[in-house]
This record gives sequence, C-alpha cells and structure tokens, in this order.
Amino acid sequence: MRVGFVGLGGMGQAMAGVLLRKGHEVIAWNRTRARAEALREAGAVVAATPAEAARVGLVVSMVADDRAVLEVAGGNDGIRAGLPRDGLHVSMSTLAPETVDQLELAHRAAGQALVVAPVFGRPDAAAAAKLFVLAAGPQAEVKRALPLLEAMGQRVFLVGEHPAHASLVKLAGNFVLSAAIEALGEALALVSKAGIDRGTFVEILTETLFAAPAYRTYGRTLVDARFSPPGFRLPLGAKDNRLVLQAGERHEVPLPLASLIRDRMLSALAQGWGELDWSVFARIAEQEAGVQSGSR
Amino acid sequence: MRVGFVGLGGMGQAMAGVLLRKGHEVIAWNRTRARAEALREAGAVVAATPAEAARVGLVVSMVADDRAVLEVAGGNDGIRAGLPRDGLHVSMSTLAPETVDQLELAHRAAGQALVVAPVFGRPDAAAAAKLFVLAAGPQAEVKRALPLLEAMGQRVFLVGEHPAHASLVKLAGNFVLSAAIEALGEALALVSKAGIDRGTFVEILTETLFAAPAYRTYGRTLVDARFSPPGFRLPLGAKDNRLVLQAGERHEVPLPLASLIRDRMLSALAQGWGELDWSVFARIAEQEAGVQSGSR
Amino acid sequence: MRVGFVGLGGMGQAMAGVLLRKGHEVIAWNRTRARAEALREAGAVVAATPAEAARVGLVVSMVADDRAVLEVAGGNDGIRAGLPRDGLHVSMSTLAPETVDQLELAHRAAGQALVVAPVFGRPDAAAAAKLFVLAAGPQAEVKRALPLLEAMGQRVFLVGEHPAHASLVKLAGNFVLSAAIEALGEALALVSKAGIDRGTFVEILTETLFAAPAYRTYGRTLVDARFSPPGFRLPLGAKDNRLVLQAGERHEVPLPLASLIRDRMLSALAQGWGELDWSVFARIAEQEAGVQSGSR
Amino acid sequence: MRVGFVGLGGMGQAMAGVLLRKGHEVIAWNRTRARAEALREAGAVVAATPAEAARVGLVVSMVADDRAVLEVAGGNDGIRAGLPRDGLHVSMSTLAPETVDQLELAHRAAGQALVVAPVFGRPDAAAAAKLFVLAAGPQAEVKRALPLLEAMGQRVFLVGEHPAHASLVKLAGNFVLSAAIEALGEALALVSKAGIDRGTFVEILTETLFAAPAYRTYGRTLVDARFSPPGFRLPLGAKDNRLVLQAGERHEVPLPLASLIRDRMLSALAQGWGELDWSVFARIAEQEAGVQSGSR
Repeated sequence: MRVGFVGLGGMGQAMAGVLLRKGHEVIAWNRTRARAEALREAGAVVAATPAEAARVGLVVSMVADDRAVLEVAGGNDGIRAGLPRDGLHVSMSTLAPETVDQLELAHRAAGQALVVAPVFGRPDAAAAAKLFVLAAGPQAEVKRALPLLEAMGQRVFLVGEHPAHASLVKLAGNFVLSAAIEALGEALALVSKAGIDRGTFVEILTETLFAAPAYRTYGRTLVDARFSPPGFRLPLGAKDNRLVLQAGERHEVPLPLASLIRDRMLSALAQGWGELDWSVFARIAEQEAGVQSGSR
Repeated sequence: MRVGFVGLGGMGQAMAGVLLRKGHEVIAWNRTRARAEALREAGAVVAATPAEAARVGLVVSMVADDRAVLEVAGGNDGIRAGLPRDGLHVSMSTLAPETVDQLELAHRAAGQALVVAPVFGRPDAAAAAKLFVLAAGPQAEVKRALPLLEAMGQRVFLVGEHPAHASLVKLAGNFVLSAAIEALGEALALVSKAGIDRGTFVEILTETLFAAPAYRTYGRTLVDARFSPPGFRLPLGAKDNRLVLQAGERHEVPLPLASLIRDRMLSALAQGWGELDWSVFARIAEQEAGVQSGSR
Repeated sequence: MRVGFVGLGGMGQAMAGVLLRKGHEVIAWNRTRARAEALREAGAVVAATPAEAARVGLVVSMVADDRAVLEVAGGNDGIRAGLPRDGLHVSMSTLAPETVDQLELAHRAAGQALVVAPVFGRPDAAAAAKLFVLAAGPQAEVKRALPLLEAMGQRVFLVGEHPAHASLVKLAGNFVLSAAIEALGEALALVSKAGIDRGTFVEILTETLFAAPAYRTYGRTLVDARFSPPGFRLPLGAKDNRLVLQAGERHEVPLPLASLIRDRMLSALAQGWGELDWSVFARIAEQEAGVQSGSR
Repeated sequence: MRVGFVGLGGMGQAMAGVLLRKGHEVIAWNRTRARAEALREAGAVVAATPAEAARVGLVVSMVADDRAVLEVAGGNDGIRAGLPRDGLHVSMSTLAPETVDQLELAHRAAGQALVVAPVFGRPDAAAAAKLFVLAAGPQAEVKRALPLLEAMGQRVFLVGEHPAHASLVKLAGNFVLSAAIEALGEALALVSKAGIDRGTFVEILTETLFAAPAYRTYGRTLVDARFSPPGFRLPLGAKDNRLVLQAGERHEVPLPLASLIRDRMLSALAQGWGELDWSVFARIAEQEAGVQSGSR
C-alpha cells in the first residue's frame, strides 16, 4: 500500500522502517528533515509537509504529544489540508481522549475519517514489528487500516467504534504498568533493607505470579538500576500519568494509585532525573527508605 | 518418606493429599479432628497431638496464622515437644518474619532445625501439586526437605539461609499482587465509566504486557465481580497486608502503596465484605467512582 | 474614590456593597445585568461593559475563575480596552499563577498595572468587611489600591512584588484548609464509630490546639452534616485543588495530601454532591468507614 | 491533697512540680531514682516502689508508653499492689484504648477505680500549669480527681464514662495535629520553590484562618527548621500515629491521611532523624521537592 507517515522519532522511524521492509510505499515527513532523509535510503519518499504526505489518501501519524498532533494535523500544510475527502488518518500517538475527540470532529467536518491506534512497545519492539496495537474507529475504516497495523504489530486489538476509547485503554494500560513499577520499587526497598538479594526476589516474582513482559523488563531495570539510556523518558511517563488523571477528573473517577505515582514522578523530576528512563520514579521508594543503591 | 503434617485447612488438606498420592507416609493432625479423619481414607495415619505427628522426625505445618503456628509448635503437646533432637520442622504458613525468628530460636534451643517454606497458590493449585514454594533455612536442612517440597510444588525457589527471608519474600510478593489488583480496580472504574467494555479491557492487558497468572486470575474475578466463594478470604489478605506494613516499620521502609491497600481493605471490611474473596477490595475504587456493577 | 467593579456574584456584590457603604463611587458591571441593577439602588452606576467600568482608571474584578477573568479583561469591551494608560486593575479572584502572569504581561504591554489581591472569607465575611486580603504587585500600585482593599478587609497582607505570588499564597492557604477538613473527617469517622460524641470531640479540639476560625466553622459543619446551602460549592473547591496541584507540577513539588483531597473531591462529585458545600468531601471518610450520619 | 505520682520524665516532673507548688503533698516514684531525688528538694517524698506511691489511695501515673504503664501498674511492687480497695489510679499517659481497657479490668478486679486523663501540651506548658486535660471515667471518680487535674491544667474536658474514650480523643487530636504539620510542610515546599518568603506565608496563615496554637508553634518550627532540642521526639510521634492506625483497624475505619503521615515518619526515621522533634517529618515534603533548607 501507499501510505504517508508523519513523525519519525524513535518510534515512528522504526515503524516506518518496518512498513518499507514489508514492501509498502512510504511518503515520510518529519519536522527535522534529517530524520526523514535517513529513511530515504531505505526507500521512502520524503515529503516537504504533512499535507504532502497525506495526499496519498492514507496517512499514519506518530508524534510526541497532543500539541504535536494538533500541529501536524491542522494548518495550511497539515494533514487535513492534504488528505483528500474520504481519506483516512491513522493516529498512533498516545493522546488525551479529549484531543482525539477534537481531531475526530475536525476530520469529519472535512469529510475525512480518523482511526486511533496507539501501541504498547518501545522502539526495539517497533523495529521488530512486535508492537501491540489498540485500534478504534468506524468499523470500515479500521478494516482499511488493518493491513498496515498488522504489518507493524504482532497483534491488533479492536477497542470499538469510538477513537477516544483506544486512547483511554492505552492510558489505563500505562497506568497499570506504572503501578507495577511502583510496587516493585517499594518491595525492593523492603527486601533490600532486610538483606535479601534483589535479583533473587525479582526472579522469584517473574517466574511465578508475574511471569509477564512488564515485570521482566522493569524488574531487571530496577535490580540493575540501569535507567540510562532511557527506553521512554520520565517526562513522557509523567505526561501519560497526567492524561490518565485528567481522564479520571473528566469522568469523576478518583485514582489514588495514579495520584501516588504522580507524586513519585514529580519527586523524581525534582531530583533532576528528567533524562532517565521513566521507571526511575521507583527509586524514590528506596530513597525514602534510606537505601543506597548502585549506579544509574 | 515418613512425614508429620500439622494443619489441614483448605491448603493443608490438599497438600497432604498430594504427599499421600505420591507415595509418602503422612501422620496428620488437625485441631478439628474431623478434617484429619477425612484424610485417613486416603491413607494417612491420624495423630492425637502435634507432638505425635512430629515424632517421626520431619514435620510440615500449614496453619492459619502466627498465633496458630506458635500454638501448635509450643506446649506439652506441641511440635517441639514431639520432634526428636536433630528433627526438622518445615513451616509453610505465611508468617511474620518476627514470628519466624522466634520459632527458629526456640527450635534451635531444642537442638532442632527450622525451614520456612511459604507458597504461592490457592487450594486448587495445591491439589494439583502446582504450588510455587519459597524455601529458606540452613542449606543441609533445606536439602532434607526438598523431596517433600518438590512433591508439593511445581517449582521450589531457594531464598537463602535465613528462614525469615522466605516469609518476607512471600509477604512482599503478596503485596505486589495486591498492587496489581488495586491498579486493575482503578483502571476498570475509569474505563467502565467512559463506556468501554470491561472484558475487552482486561483481555487486552492480559494478552499483552500483563500476560501473567496474577492478572488473568484477578482480571477475570473483577470483570465478573465474582467474589464468592472466596479463594482467599479478605481478612486473611488484610492480615498479610498488616504483616508487610509491620515489616516496613521494622526496617524503616515507607510503603505508601501498601498503605493505600490497607485503607481499601478496611473500607471493604467496613462494607461488610469480610466473607468474600480478598480481591473484593478493588471494588472500593468503583464504589468511590459511583460505578454500579453486577452481582458479586 | 471612584472605582470600577467587575463581577457581582455572591462575593463581588457584597464587596461592592461595602465600598458604596463606605462612601466610594462604584461603576459596576456584571454579565447578567440584573445583579448590577440590584446595586444601583445602593448608589452604584451601572456600566454597559467591563471597558466602561474600567474607564475611571482603577478597576476591581471579582469573577468566578481563570477563564472569566481572561474574558472580562480582554476583547474590545474588556477591562484592558477601557482602562487608560497608567490605569490599575486589581484582580481579587482566586486564579492560577500562570493566568496572573499572562494577565500581567498583557496589562504591561498596554502600559497598565496589575495588582492581584485574593481574599480569605465567604460572602458573609465580605458583607461585614471582614475579609483577609493578600495583595501583591509593584509597591506603588499596591499603595494606590490600599484604601479600597482596607475598606473591604479587616486586614491586608502584603505578599511582595510578584502578583502571581498572592495567587499562590491563596491557593496554598486553601490547601491547608482542605487538609484540616479531611483530618476532621477522618477523625470524626473514627471517634463516631468508637461511640464518642462528635460534638464533644470537635468542641475539645476547637477550644484547645485548634482554636481557630477554620476549625470552628468546618467542625460545626461536619458535626451537623449541614452542607446546604453551600458557602462555597464543591466544584469551586475542586478547581482550587486542581490549581494547587498544577502549581506543584509547575514547580516539581509532590503534594500527596493535595492528591488525597483531589481523590476525595472526585468521589464526592461522583456521589452527586456537586451542589453542596465543598467541605462535603470530608463525608467520604465516613462513607468508607460505613458510618451512617444524619441529614445533609 | 496527698497524691502518689509515678513517672517523672519531662512531663511528669513538671506536673508533679506544679502540684507541689500548689500545696499538694506528693509521694513520687521514678524508675531512675535520680529524677525523683531532684523533686525531693521541692518538697516531695520519694517512694521506693510504685506500690508505695499508690498506698495513699490516689495515684497519678505519667509514663512513656503502654508497656511502661502496664509495668508500673502490675507486679508485686506495682500500683495495683499498693493501692487500697476503692483507691483511684489517674493515668495521664497517651495510651492505646486497648491498653486502657485492659488496665480498667485489672483495677476493677482489685476493687479499684481508673480515670484516664491524657493531656495536650508539652513540658513548658506542663510547668506553667497550662495543659489541656481530657478526662474520662466513672463520674464520681472523675470528680474525685478533678482538683488535681484542675491544678495541672488550664482546662479540663470531660469525655464521658469510658476511660478508653479519653485515650482515643487524645490520639485523634494528635492525628489532626500531625495533619496540620504535613499540610504546612507541603505548602512550604511549594511556596519556597516558587520564591515566596516562608515566614511571610506562615504569618499570613496564622493571623487569619489558622490563628491557633498548633499552627503558630509548628509554623515557626518549620520556618526556622529548628527541630532540636525536641519538644516531643519523633519515635513518640510515630508511636501515637501507630496507635491511631490500630484504632482505625479495630473499628474498621480507613485513615488515608494517617497512613500518609505514617509513611512520612518512617521516611524521617530512615533519614536518621530519630532524635529530632516529631514535626521533622514535614521535612520529607521538602526533600522530595528537592528544596534545600537551612539548619536543623
């Protein structure tokens, strides 16, 4: 298929690379053009504007945050301006449900469709086409996007007809993940101070009740205290946490565990850890317990 | 092997049954004798006192709580009184580390050994010999207990030489589990109120980042709101939570997430849910959000 | 003095009334004109627009929230359009510090000055000229506003030269107040369930360590469970809580107690208590404890 | 009146001194006899045992904690052994309600009465006879103790007939106080980081909504970061917090704010601040926010 691709950060570049490898034609755009040029060698056409990338009628976007998606979608050079009537925008960023609603209305007014399809997985999973994709939108449009989504992911889950629902499921999933990280941080502070080997503890958990990717990945990160280079930077984790709290506010749902993690993340930012992996917030539990740990 | 077995509640009965099935000779004791008699048909010898069960030199205990283990271990009719010098007590209950230390000292004074080996798994896993066993104690003694532990569990993890460490790992593991349940409860409250199907949400989590027994079991329980019959009653969960908080106090480790769960459990008890499965505390998140959910 | 007055809600009307009573000339504007007309009998001149009220060179605003102040300050009919060069806007609403910064820049660009002077006190205190006023801004401008501020308040505190600081002190003060209310709520839940008379408990506190207006007012409200009519509606309290959390985020300051109150307020909103006094969030502590209390 | 006085720590010595000054005869006992001798010069008779101090028929105790009161009350040399039938024990320590119940039963079995009368106030207030006393017990017995209680306090509050109720009111009052301290700590972290003068902030609060002794005392302590010498050591504050949480558990009352303070206190202990004033836990809020503050 021919597809526009807007946003070539760590995730976007890996995903667009997968599409090229699997034989799709990619018209790529990125704000800093150098990243787009890097993809030219892999066979991509480089577009001068998001509008140009969207002209082909089907365009994927994978950008940093809500503001970025509103910028690349709107304006004279934006996706909406270039996308033909009946064209489809597949937004794969993690966005606030409110932003999705706003985006959907704008596309609809232009006679265009929106599918929202955020992913679980970090750049290495993206490069290996091992993402989990959560897709939502009108059924026919999701079907249209499916070959691309299946190319990029190891599995695609259908969340329903409301694009904002896919965003919320993604945010809620990230929240559940952050809770697991906080729990590991507190448990490690406790067992460490009691003189139990941290690696043994995490191994026991991840080979029994918690034999899941989330615990294996972050259990290892915490045991090794290896937060750099970051897989996902702390300020981005803090953004997702803010979005889930905002969703709680909108729907009048108290989320005390998400509030706890908010405060942990702010503590971590206040320690100057903004360039580290987001899971570093689990270190606050150890710091409060007076545990000295190894290198970071 | 010939082994005494003290404590035939839901867990103990299943575990002793497995030992019998696998060809071990079991001398069983239980406070309410009827439960021991039930095991006689399966081949067990019924002892009149814990001391009698311990006389064989190797005795397993699996009782409800700290007070119960101190009762069956001490006194004229207790395990210590019956166990020969150089005998071994394998305590498999979930105990406070302090209780373990106390028990260890008493056995040592009597020239006896203690191995502590709590388990992950509920009665159905016990009956299927699928428990995960966490064993700690002097190396030679753990080795002596190993054939029994391996008979009862699908895998035995060695936590080190200090019996109390096995207790703490168990408690910390239960805490991590309770955190996962709370996270699911809050996330379900949010997605439900936003109009997303609860089952779809849990399915997505448990087939992606959280493809682990803990999330599958409790995700299903929460989606179905099926808290009765209980796999593990709320007051027992509250006891384990209290023990982990006490361990935090002893080692000066703040555990805000464990504190949150403490308050959730007290709320659930205050609603009169003491006879339900411990995971029912996750319902407080929904109650606070004003979510009406189905049957319990 | 001649002064414009923009915003005649419960607070604004009482404050403008005090100014009139003390001999000041008031040119009043309110979005729903009827409320301004009510003040005409007391001697006010009714303006057709905020700009008209501002033309006199000194204008007070007391509106509901950040959005409202930006609306009355901007646009062709707004305060900035009417206020002469060197004119002074005294904003007495509780605003986000960011909004204050934005407002200050806009006034400065127009050659105008801004003093920010939020208050502690409810409409009855305003009507009795018993407000506490927290004023911040350039020294000369605060001095210019002082006769008015002193007319409306029992005392004026100077917070410094940065208008946003007065906002933040107000928000932080409201937060400390909300903490006192939550503490009372939890303590009442505990002593009630233990069989101690709630009134006796609050009397002891408020005649000993907590002999302060905050505890007397809210202690009584909670003991009587009299949340209607509201002195300050829950959604307004929730707004102030949101602003203090946002300030925490901006400055990287974790505020776990403010987070707890956030979740309490959301619970209270989810119970449908949005029309009641903001202190009703303290009832969540009792609800979680299964305490039945009297009328509301 | 003639009265025995058991326990001459910082508080007890000041209180017994007041009784002597006001013309009462005091028979004093303390575990480390040197402290009793110091009181001899002021006119006290020194007793060799608590029993001897109790022989006069009316005895006050003011000891460190639950264990200490059980020790001085029981045994061959204890208060119960010396107190005549119909004698009265006035226990003024801060105790767990359970301990009070236990003490009451034991005295009743010996035909003796118990009044429980904990106080608000630190040693300087005790020396100035400015304590607030919370008394509970059988009406006639409280009346009998009243002249002594009124001698030691600026005011005596009657909590009812159940001695344990006075304990719980005291604990709940301390909890409300700890909440105020935490709120001040968080608010100070926020305003400090925003560049607002800490002293100005506390002055504004304590001259407006929070014009109460609690806020004045601790506001000053926090602004000056003067936690040494301690008025009340952190481990004692942590003990009272533990008792209030235990009471919450007993009555099935979740206390999230008390849980937060528990975690703060554990953090403070883990930083090695066990010799400082209990209010030092408020520093954790600043530490988490990365605020550097002055001397301690």
